[in-house]
Amino acid sequence: GPVLSRGTACPGRSSKSDSSGVSNSGESSKESSRCSTPVQDADRTDRLRDKMKRRIESGDHWFSLEFFPPRTASGAVNLISRFDRMGSGGPLFIDVTWHPAGDPGSDKETSSMMIASTAVNYCGLESVLHLTCCNQTKEKITAHLNKAKRLGLKNIMALRGDPIGEDWVEEDGGFNYATDLVKHIRCECDDYFDICVAGYPTGHPEAESYDEDLRHLKEKVDAGAHFIVTQLFFRAETFLKFVKDCRAIGITCPILPGIFPIQGYHSLRQLVKLSKLEVPEEIMQVIEPIKDNDAAIRSYGIQQAVEMCKVLLASGEVPGLHFYTLNREVATIEVLRQLGLWAEDPRRPLPWAVSAHPKRKVEDVRPIFWASRPKSYIYRTQDWDDFPNGRWGNSSSPAFGELTDYYLFYLKSKSPKEALLQMWGEELMNEESVYEVFTNYITGQTNPSGHKVMCLPWNDDPLAPETNLLKDELEKVNCRGVLTINSQPNINGKPSSDPIVGWGPAGGYVFQKAYLEFFTSSENVTALLQVLKKYEPRVNYHIVNVQGKNITNAHEMQPNAVTWGIFPGREIIQPTVVDPVSFMYWKDEAFALWIEQWAKLYEDESPSRMIIQYIHDNYFLINLVDNDFPLDSCLWQVIEDMFTLLDSPPETQEEGSQS
Amino acid sequence: GPVLSRGTACPGRSSKSDSSGVSNSGESSKESSRCSTPVQDADRTDRLRDKMKRRIESGDHWFSLEFFPPRTASGAVNLISRFDRMGSGGPLFIDVTWHPAGDPGSDKETSSMMIASTAVNYCGLESVLHLTCCNQTKEKITAHLNKAKRLGLKNIMALRGDPIGEDWVEEDGGFNYATDLVKHIRCECDDYFDICVAGYPTGHPEAESYDEDLRHLKEKVDAGAHFIVTQLFFRAETFLKFVKDCRAIGITCPILPGIFPIQGYHSLRQLVKLSKLEVPEEIMQVIEPIKDNDAAIRSYGIQQAVEMCKVLLASGEVPGLHFYTLNREVATIEVLRQLGLWAEDPRRPLPWAVSAHPKRKVEDVRPIFWASRPKSYIYRTQDWDDFPNGRWGNSSSPAFGELTDYYLFYLKSKSPKEALLQMWGEELMNEESVYEVFTNYITGQTNPSGHKVMCLPWNDDPLAPETNLLKDELEKVNCRGVLTINSQPNINGKPSSDPIVGWGPAGGYVFQKAYLEFFTSSENVTALLQVLKKYEPRVNYHIVNVQGKNITNAHEMQPNAVTWGIFPGREIIQPTVVDPVSFMYWKDEAFALWIEQWAKLYEDESPSRMIIQYIHDNYFLINLVDNDFPLDSCLWQVIEDMFTLLDSPPETQEEGSQS
Repeated sequence: GPVLSRGTACPGRSSKSDSSGVSNSGESSKESSRCSTPVQDADRTDRLRDKMKRRIESGDHWFSLEFFPPRTASGAVNLISRFDRMGSGGPLFIDVTWHPAGDPGSDKETSSMMIASTAVNYCGLESVLHLTCCNQTKEKITAHLNKAKRLGLKNIMALRGDPIGEDWVEEDGGFNYATDLVKHIRCECDDYFDICVAGYPTGHPEAESYDEDLRHLKEKVDAGAHFIVTQLFFRAETFLKFVKDCRAIGITCPILPGIFPIQGYHSLRQLVKLSKLEVPEEIMQVIEPIKDNDAAIRSYGIQQAVEMCKVLLASGEVPGLHFYTLNREVATIEVLRQLGLWAEDPRRPLPWAVSAHPKRKVEDVRPIFWASRPKSYIYRTQDWDDFPNGRWGNSSSPAFGELTDYYLFYLKSKSPKEALLQMWGEELMNEESVYEVFTNYITGQTNPSGHKVMCLPWNDDPLAPETNLLKDELEKVNCRGVLTINSQPNINGKPSSDPIVGWGPAGGYVFQKAYLEFFTSSENVTALLQVLKKYEPRVNYHIVNVQGKNITNAHEMQPNAVTWGIFPGREIIQPTVVDPVSFMYWKDEAFALWIEQWAKLYEDESPSRMIIQYIHDNYFLINLVDNDFPLDSCLWQVIEDMFTLLDSPPETQEEGSQS
Repeated sequence: GPVLSRGTACPGRSSKSDSSGVSNSGESSKESSRCSTPVQDADRTDRLRDKMKRRIESGDHWFSLEFFPPRTASGAVNLISRFDRMGSGGPLFIDVTWHPAGDPGSDKETSSMMIASTAVNYCGLESVLHLTCCNQTKEKITAHLNKAKRLGLKNIMALRGDPIGEDWVEEDGGFNYATDLVKHIRCECDDYFDICVAGYPTGHPEAESYDEDLRHLKEKVDAGAHFIVTQLFFRAETFLKFVKDCRAIGITCPILPGIFPIQGYHSLRQLVKLSKLEVPEEIMQVIEPIKDNDAAIRSYGIQQAVEMCKVLLASGEVPGLHFYTLNREVATIEVLRQLGLWAEDPRRPLPWAVSAHPKRKVEDVRPIFWASRPKSYIYRTQDWDDFPNGRWGNSSSPAFGELTDYYLFYLKSKSPKEALLQMWGEELMNEESVYEVFTNYITGQTNPSGHKVMCLPWNDDPLAPETNLLKDELEKVNCRGVLTINSQPNINGKPSSDPIVGWGPAGGYVFQKAYLEFFTSSENVTALLQVLKKYEPRVNYHIVNVQGKNITNAHEMQPNAVTWGIFPGREIIQPTVVDPVSFMYWKDEAFALWIEQWAKLYEDESPSRMIIQYIHDNYFLINLVDNDFPLDSCLWQVIEDMFTLLDSPPETQEEGSQS
């Protein structure tokens, strides 16, 4: 790709070839005046360094979170969920460590590269990928950098890494210090990456002296690093002295303290051993007596971290805090809550999570169908090149990625098979058993075997707060075989700051058309089609089965905007549409989930499996839009009318069909 | 241009080169699924023949209007106004006759070509250009056709025309019959044009017989004509017999009766003489006795036309009526009103008139500044090639056409100099005299010399009904020197069918942000800027003077949508924006109008001229948007606050400046 052709002929290249567009103009973009939307980062003017600069100027403290790549695929699925949950608290960035032993640059689900890529592309998090250089060829490093670019990564933490074996031997022509790596990155990739380097408040364990180590740090920064994250420490004054010493020798970039909330006796011991740090006496004195009481240690760790962070923030020397999470969330979130840094009510820029990939930052409209499966949507559209004007572009139906690849990773349920069977039934008796599963998911009631239905194949998480607004109606229709998988209430101009349905910049108003999507039997569809005649043109519908039979009263190509927002000084944003073309792709995925996630839990030829297979083969997938958003939704009345017609004697039905 | 390269090598060309996309799919367009708007005619699927077909299928009668090109430039300005007024009644098309003696294919303001082009491009009317072929070379005809294409004309009425001299002599190799012209058009331009031919219900005066003439008509249709408009006639049965005879010999295309409401004794006599028609005895008997009473004759003509049209429409043979207007409007509109064909409440597809030019049909957003000068906007953007997604495209600031050319024609006021002086003042005493002119325009009161102010340089017409909603507030501010030239009230979801503010398809809702644009003195601007601090971020403003000094709190590139609509089964449409880039172009035009239209009415160095020149040089042009559209507009309060601050003692003002 074109990004790869840059930076391959470093020596002698003119410096004006830096076209990556460093700029401190914040939001402005040449493209934006003709765009339909607030362009966010089309020209990469909103780089991590710029974000830090603005936060420093406004005195707005931030936090960041460090994770390591998981060992197993299911660990990866869990970590991604954790990214979503911890991302909602508003970290400025997250970083992912580099594990040379774990094939970190590969396409494995568990590689550092893929985890960081997922955080950027699927979770919308500004991410920093660690990269270590010792025992690596320049070619290998360059290949990693190019791959990172391609995947949308924009920030690198440049580290030396640990040598193989006990002692450190300099290699000729290889990378011996992080400084070499920083220089290599700047040489190969111009100013494309924001670069972070590590600082050691008590000096690097292998450095000759603290002062010698400070001079190394100054070299790393001078080579082109943009900010420093420090090794963990236990006393605020350790860090504050370190910052003072850095400033004294001319290091001016942001220096972020690494915070390690103590979470257990053994993890502390191990960490200290690896990092060759000393735990202060006053901490050991508290911990030793309670070393077998995990809860007590965690509680102490939180308190200790909060107090130290308060001192750091109050010093005026600390713009943001960097947390070593050890891939856990409780302690870090609690510390951040107590510090008032955790965003309890995060304002969303759009109703769905915006990918942080540079080319997708302008994206501002998506089909509603993937609302509960946003990662699937991003995966299936990852090869789209253009989002001109933030939209899909002029191609009438950009191909969606095949379902098959997708199964490999993103279709996986977070729950193990046994848990799914407990929720969805060890043995299904009939279609009604399936209706009960849906109903229990809606109501949150336990099923006969005493388990709550926490997810469905189409919804990995419990009911969203917004959908909760529709709970009573949803329960009523699901227990009669209208198996809902997606819905939204109508909204007629609520403030963009509304905690449940709000999104977008302050001072705006958000709107929605009522939407309902469900599976139901072909008998129900026959009655529904009768009923829908009464609701023309107020209600738009698409009704399809797995074979692709398609009944609609909507324009075959025209999307219907079902979520939009009006903001001060902006064009209209319409982030969610019911799009007839993409619905046919979603249909394949939605029907496939019956089989892949549910039917396959049961033995071949088993009655349970045959029931799901029957539904897959015979039910229809329906979506309904009530266009009259200022009025109460009529969609529940549509379903009610359908049931009334089904309940009426046959002659009445006949009459109905002639009306 | 590319349209010219088609159809120049007729013989031997494969018929598959017809890429003009004939289709009966009505609205569908490949482009539309990714567009932000209802694409109207991107692929020319909505040709005149298709529109007729749909209206015939739905039994929805139409009418069309024939005009001739005016003799003078001011006659052209008047005719264009008539197009706007008569266009609002909903004609399916208008047609413009071809006057060989009047240089009909030239660029003169009065040529047939330019009048038809204006109807298409500036008035948004589906237009048919007449073209006669006798005494013309093929090359000349081809040049006319190519020019018509380039101007966006899509329909030709192919006529023989009148020979020079008394007798008809066939020319070898030239065009002798309309059939030759039809063939030539199809040969040169494939299927690009929809072609109309003339029918003679009583036979062409030069034809050997009625039957011979019918056979000629059949030849014309077979050569590629799409519909027939007939010569005028006086009895419904004449036309109905003619249709029956046409159908009998296999003419299947639409046949539209030419209706001529008698409007005066002498015009009837002259027409009859030219057309060699006979006026039936029963009509002459009524008319002769009242021949000197114009009102009585017109009244009879209306009644006679209405009755004949009722018979025609009731016959089931007549899908639409074609009116010979003689460039007059009263009689034709009255006939159409009585027939119920005049659209009293025309539903607008967008809040402004959409150009009928094929390449501009996808346009769906314009800056608000030209709201009262839409022809100026179209003129100045006529060379823009792309309206991708109905928008301006990605070019950050497409150049607007120079003001200088524009003056030549479109800046002309419809009123003569004397009338303007009567309205705007033979002699101005001071700036307050100018305030009075603005105030009188708003209130509709007569000025001291007894004249109403019917227009201003920025507004060619009296106050729009929508602006009338703001009349009281506008009066109050204008008399104090806030000289308003554009405004709209806020609207929070009125039905799209609303007679005053509605637009777009049925079943939708329209919205607006309150908008106010005015000139005012620099003293007022100083106070206004103080006041506006209180209204951040609710109110966006742009404040510029003629030198280009520019004060704003809006994003420098981001347009602010101030009119939008939500419709069933559609994406959002946002047809009007306040765009910072185009405002700087509008500013030049708005300031120029002070001088070109007003100052130049007075002698050089005269006090009146110097007053206008002073305003031009020293006043600012300001636009204000109240982003909080669900609340009552705060813009009047902003102005009120400005006056309060100006009225307060200086020390209070100082205090204000520190708040």
